Amino acid sequence: MKGGDMTAVDPLDPLDHVARLAAARAALDGVGIDALLVTELTHVRYLTGFTGSAATVLIHPAGVLFVTDGRYRTQAGAELGAAGVDVELAIVLTRQEEVDLVAAAAAGRSRVGLEAARVTWAQQRDMAARWFPEAELVATEGLIERLREVKAPAEVARIEAAAAIADAALAAVVAGLAQGPTEAEFALELDSTMRRLGAEALSFDTIVASGPNAALPHAHPGPRRIVDGDLVVIDFGAVVDGYHSDMTRTVCVGEPTPDQVRMYEVVGAAHDAGRRATRAGVAASEVDAAARAVIEDAGWGDAFPHGTGHGVGLEIHEAPHVGRVSAATLSSGSVITIEPGVYLPGLGGVRTEDTVLVDDGGCRALTSYPKSLTI
Amino acid sequence: MKGGDMTAVDPLDPLDHVARLAAARAALDGVGIDALLVTELTHVRYLTGFTGSAATVLIHPAGVLFVTDGRYRTQAGAELGAAGVDVELAIVLTRQEEVDLVAAAAAGRSRVGLEAARVTWAQQRDMAARWFPEAELVATEGLIERLREVKAPAEVARIEAAAAIADAALAAVVAGLAQGPTEAEFALELDSTMRRLGAEALSFDTIVASGPNAALPHAHPGPRRIVDGDLVVIDFGAVVDGYHSDMTRTVCVGEPTPDQVRMYEVVGAAHDAGRRATRAGVAASEVDAAARAVIEDAGWGDAFPHGTGHGVGLEIHEAPHVGRVSAATLSSGSVITIEPGVYLPGLGGVRTEDTVLVDDGGCRALTSYPKSLTI
Repeated sequence: MKGGDMTAVDPLDPLDHVARLAAARAALDGVGIDALLVTELTHVRYLTGFTGSAATVLIHPAGVLFVTDGRYRTQAGAELGAAGVDVELAIVLTRQEEVDLVAAAAAGRSRVGLEAARVTWAQQRDMAARWFPEAELVATEGLIERLREVKAPAEVARIEAAAAIADAALAAVVAGLAQGPTEAEFALELDSTMRRLGAEALSFDTIVASGPNAALPHAHPGPRRIVDGDLVVIDFGAVVDGYHSDMTRTVCVGEPTPDQVRMYEVVGAAHDAGRRATRAGVAASEVDAAARAVIEDAGWGDAFPHGTGHGVGLEIHEAPHVGRVSAATLSSGSVITIEPGVYLPGLGGVRTEDTVLVDDGGCRALTSYPKSLTI
Repeated sequence: MKGGDMTAVDPLDPLDHVARLAAARAALDGVGIDALLVTELTHVRYLTGFTGSAATVLIHPAGVLFVTDGRYRTQAGAELGAAGVDVELAIVLTRQEEVDLVAAAAAGRSRVGLEAARVTWAQQRDMAARWFPEAELVATEGLIERLREVKAPAEVARIEAAAAIADAALAAVVAGLAQGPTEAEFALELDSTMRRLGAEALSFDTIVASGPNAALPHAHPGPRRIVDGDLVVIDFGAVVDGYHSDMTRTVCVGEPTPDQVRMYEVVGAAHDAGRRATRAGVAASEVDAAARAVIEDAGWGDAFPHGTGHGVGLEIHEAPHVGRVSAATLSSGSVITIEPGVYLPGLGGVRTEDTVLVDDGGCRALTSYPKSLTI
């Protein structure tokens, strides 16, 4: 096995699931509900530590009901036990058993919250009819997301560990770009290296976009061979204990042209401007505006067709959104990306992205691979 | 680059997006709607060939409106052009522009279908208020899914190509199990090999569950080192042009015990029974019943806590569900998995899975790695 040199991630401080579950419970009053049904698996994991693929959690004033199926009997017991959360664990064999259990636990509740952005319309219709026929279903939005937005130090440590893996992986493979791999080959090498260094998964499908493909902000790595003179946009991340990192570097293979240098410098200046604008209490839209202004001043406003960034944590895209019309205000403890880009059909593209931790004085980068246009 | 020996998949026959879009349009009448909004990206890809991460498609009697954002200007034009579909392509810069465009195209439609299992409740609420204030929103379910359930030969060819990659990858790495890798190391080796052989992605996070972990149907590959005497459940698949394969093999490292042999034989007999029951026109629940009966007869009914299978195609889990309470009837051209398993805490687990193509006379396996308990 070539994988024999696989690295283990250093031990990490435990996450405080007990405090999270208490905070979620305390949030019910604020939106006038007397129970909240959580089916979004990221939220289930956040609140209880359970990492399986099927669970339903009902949070109500008298307690917390946790339902999963037979496949997860052993795992659920172990993970909930490790998290130390006080929940009633039920294993069901059929969907009907689940409905009956949840309905019984919710009996007498008049307003049951359902996470509107996390259940399908079909689920809501089914739940209204079969699960909670007596209660009013209340569409809640952002309740758990807001709790997740402010990261505890133990969460930041996980994102940092993921970022360190990504940094080290790129350092290990970047020289290979000069040997003329295809985009897909380079992506595979980068991905395998992240996993060998301890990533439990990749944050998302790695983007390696070279030459003309670099003008597509979300190109899929393909059979195109990377050649001298190419700009190569590399957007990737690692996952450690559920937490994601996100970083983009753009490099030029060989000697960059003056046009390529100018694109790189403008995007770099936009990135720096976005970072300087980042601080707790600032509107996320101001961070976007600061980065965007630099690109607009260079005459490339139309060539920056996406937002400046997004929150990162248990999901690769989470609150807050950092874009033109974002309504969010940055909090101390938020982790966001800053990733302006310029994409010019024919010429290629440049994107420069770090994941940063917001604090009262500004922000601190968690990804730290050096920025340089040449390899 | 070690990836330098990457293999390209043989050219595949084109998919008939024009026919698919026509079939979708023809389906509107059957459910009494005069427009259908499609936001599910798998459906967008199925109907139009577009593979990007943001698109909204409105199908109505007078035409098809396709909306995406600036990131996908070039890609959308190229992919829709290659598919040859007759759609009106619009690129928007803001959400409001999208709302206005779709609302204008839907003006005068009285019943607009929304895929209830594919939009969130929050989306439905927003659309009812802002997108279609004059129309009745109709919850449709399974409209596009039913079209996707019957695969055209060009789709089967893609699943077969994906299955061939998975077969070849396991053949290339299986001997390494005897060298004592960790689960995570073996999974990485298998995954990298699939990608080197031309998989554009993995069907899902590969499962490598050894020893006691094999008793968990959905274990995540971890740091446990695989040792002599272990049962190892390996569940994995490759993606080719969007189409997934799915296969599980269970092997014993070293000499199996009589208990392990018995588990393997019972699961194998259950798998064979499921396959023998599979034929167009048969209820999916009968396939489940046939496989389950073998395991129940062996006294292990409680140790088989999941369904016998599921459809496979553009999604790793799609229609039809093959389980105890499935309401589906198998169609000729359906592609499903048959994957009974037995999981015994302490002893480990066995699962045997193939992806098969259903036809009028029975079924044909698309995954074809040999089944043998020993390596």
